[in-house]
Amino acid sequence: MTTQVQEAQAGVNALIERFSTPEAAQMTFTVGAELTEGLKMDVDIRKHRITVDEPKGLGGTDEGPNPVELVLAALTTCQAITYRVWAMKLGIALDSVHVEADGDIDLRGFFGVDDSVRAGYSEVRLRVRLDGPETQERYEELAEAVDGHCPVLDFTGSPVPIQRTLV
Amino acid sequence: MTTQVQEAQAGVNALIERFSTPEAAQMTFTVGAELTEGLKMDVDIRKHRITVDEPKGLGGTDEGPNPVELVLAALTTCQAITYRVWAMKLGIALDSVHVEADGDIDLRGFFGVDDSVRAGYSEVRLRVRLDGPETQERYEELAEAVDGHCPVLDFTGSPVPIQRTLV
Repeated sequence: MTTQVQEAQAGVNALIERFSTPEAAQMTFTVGAELTEGLKMDVDIRKHRITVDEPKGLGGTDEGPNPVELVLAALTTCQAITYRVWAMKLGIALDSVHVEADGDIDLRGFFGVDDSVRAGYSEVRLRVRLDGPETQERYEELAEAVDGHCPVLDFTGSPVPIQRTLV
Repeated sequence: MTTQVQEAQAGVNALIERFSTPEAAQMTFTVGAELTEGLKMDVDIRKHRITVDEPKGLGGTDEGPNPVELVLAALTTCQAITYRVWAMKLGIALDSVHVEADGDIDLRGFFGVDDSVRAGYSEVRLRVRLDGPETQERYEELAEAVDGHCPVLDFTGSPVPIQRTLV
């Protein structure tokens, strides 16, 4: 293990130490979305704002990604961050991470044309490209750890209790 | 039903008509994410680019929302668009839609401090605020239709098959 990898490992372990009790580890994230015009929306996420819209062929004006693209953005970025953090935690050198995702959807579900078709993705394909000096086995070990600890992948793998209130 | 609501209904029905066959309704969305520096990433979604990062307290530089916030952004915007589209489809007048979501997460799951803790959200709370001239009953009817047809809500409610390849 190089000095650089050891330093990264010490750094991430110091960060993890801060979240090691149930009280410190509990966080709540909050986001708000408002329809502005047509299908276009502003989403406020703390100090950050994203514009979300539908492509022209789906009734929007294409001023931003659409919500199902945003899910893939969440999934790919969560994978990438989890690769970085877990590589540091496991002391694995990792030069670059690139993650792509395809999601297949049958819009008859969303539009209610056929209610036997699910509204969301029928399948998602993730392609993870890692570069670095370690063996294939070490990166396979890393990938196993990542798939067991990626918060957005977890979200897609088993139901999350959702409470909806309407005002 | 006002003329405006009737016109919106005709418009959305014309859009839905275009996706009424299994072939036309099948779409694939693709997204790619690359780690640039530290935990910061660029996500490319067709012609759109989003910067994703972690807050400073979580090891990032806070130049954008983080992946689990992006999931809530996807969920709230998908709800909002689905309210708009289904209000048109059902001929329900709807002046404004605002959707907020909170997600609770226990970071001991992500960091591997306690593997009995799930990596993702333990609970999500959605608050939907609708304004318009219709009765409470009509908006309840709309909310039921939306919850049955929102692609991102579907994603969170039952597992999506995910295939991961590692290069």
